[in-house]
Amino acid sequence: MELIDGNKIAADIIAELKAQVALLPGRPPCLALVRVGEDPASVSYVKKKEKASADIGITSRLLFPPVTISQDELFALIDGLNADSEVDGILVQSPLPKHLNEVAVFRRIAAHKDVDGFHTLNLGKLAQEDETGFVACTPAGIMQLLQRSGVSISGRHVVVLGRSLIVGKPTALLALQRKAWANATVTVCHSQTANLPALTRQADVLIAAIGKAGFVTADMVKPGAVVIDVGVNRVADSTKKTGYRLTGDVHFPTVAPLCSKITPVPGGVGPMTVAMLMQNTVKARRQNLPFPQP
Amino acid sequence: MELIDGNKIAADIIAELKAQVALLPGRPPCLALVRVGEDPASVSYVKKKEKASADIGITSRLLFPPVTISQDELFALIDGLNADSEVDGILVQSPLPKHLNEVAVFRRIAAHKDVDGFHTLNLGKLAQEDETGFVACTPAGIMQLLQRSGVSISGRHVVVLGRSLIVGKPTALLALQRKAWANATVTVCHSQTANLPALTRQADVLIAAIGKAGFVTADMVKPGAVVIDVGVNRVADSTKKTGYRLTGDVHFPTVAPLCSKITPVPGGVGPMTVAMLMQNTVKARRQNLPFPQP
Repeated sequence: MELIDGNKIAADIIAELKAQVALLPGRPPCLALVRVGEDPASVSYVKKKEKASADIGITSRLLFPPVTISQDELFALIDGLNADSEVDGILVQSPLPKHLNEVAVFRRIAAHKDVDGFHTLNLGKLAQEDETGFVACTPAGIMQLLQRSGVSISGRHVVVLGRSLIVGKPTALLALQRKAWANATVTVCHSQTANLPALTRQADVLIAAIGKAGFVTADMVKPGAVVIDVGVNRVADSTKKTGYRLTGDVHFPTVAPLCSKITPVPGGVGPMTVAMLMQNTVKARRQNLPFPQP
Repeated sequence: MELIDGNKIAADIIAELKAQVALLPGRPPCLALVRVGEDPASVSYVKKKEKASADIGITSRLLFPPVTISQDELFALIDGLNADSEVDGILVQSPLPKHLNEVAVFRRIAAHKDVDGFHTLNLGKLAQEDETGFVACTPAGIMQLLQRSGVSISGRHVVVLGRSLIVGKPTALLALQRKAWANATVTVCHSQTANLPALTRQADVLIAAIGKAGFVTADMVKPGAVVIDVGVNRVADSTKKTGYRLTGDVHFPTVAPLCSKITPVPGGVGPMTVAMLMQNTVKARRQNLPFPQP
């Protein structure tokens, strides 16, 4: 069994992006980071994104409106960023406070600056295999983990556990693409699936994104499979200062010995999402150049 | 074994739409039918759509530019229809002559008039389960055939054979939706799939859309399965005046006896596409009313 080291792979990608950004003509890429309120997890996530930007040479523009901002005010803020030719990418940190319509807010971001890949048009482009679009960061990160670990999914059976809009469905659409690195046979399972273990046991590559701690047990995994654990679940743990620890959707101690490769939680998929956000931002800058580059 | 009668189900839907249209306020729905050149198959398809429109009470506006029309001229024609508030839906009959970029032409149609459901934004809305979008006619027709034949796919295993943009992928996305009539576990197989018969034999519902005559043979089907045959293939037949007959992707004589239900070709999925085009046009009119109705 081999651990897939997300921290290492993400660091490699960030180093590559830094080298690419140094060669870009004109001003550096600029990412607007919008954080509403002071939610501690959001503060921490946005800091990570700011730091990765700085490491690469991406300018970050920080906008921290108060938790009381109205939807119209937030729309106006986004409209300003959409219209600003100095801004290449816009990220609105989720979750938003309950009085804001998150879907409407994400759709307000211009599709060509939607580096989170949540816009309807970008999801449509993913389905159409149109590479001018932005792919959501978690699915894009999963594909990078597989490619950079030497796992070919072409012609093999990828089983995706979960059908969410930001992980399950786009991951399935990516794995299906007519690309040398994709071309997988894809099954999407979810909470309503009958005989789930019989299906997941067929997976050459099992991608768990169901949001339930330790849900995937040894009886659900084929020996030799590659397992990607997307889950980030909080489990009470009195030995921790925070009172909890993070754990994945996979019961790691019993599943890991069966696998040919597996991602740990934390340190697997997690670090990749920031790296993919950076990659999308550099792509947005390229497409935003007076003479866009591929 | 029971035949699923696409002609009967399509006729039922058309009768329902006629009753709905009679109750709509204001002018009747209007569908623009654009046919470039005189390709005989396209002439016949457009006639069918014109006739179905007339049966329902939908006004059709016919535009038959010559085969020599340039892309810019066709764009200008579409732009005019997009801007015309008297036009609710726009259909450009495919295939287009080779000198025209079909993808670019389909994308030129305003998303809210794209009753064929090919626009990137409508595909994105399908993935997002946003019901304001238009679903492509063949996938929508397949779901209607299943529902109206009393086949529930919830929690059952739907295997889609083929990953095309207009059938395979949207059908998979529809079957996955969190709807009482959907909620299926979905596998998408294709030309690169290893051990295809082992996968298709797991299907409670097998949807064949691979474009190869008689490809699905008895060894690939689980006894009792429901089989939907989307294929429309021309096979040489000297006993026919045309020199060919139409046949599906399923080897009907050997597969049909195994099935609980199966669609014939012709007379299965085919008639449903026109019915779904009509349904999308009525929906476009509803959304285009001064006070849109659900």
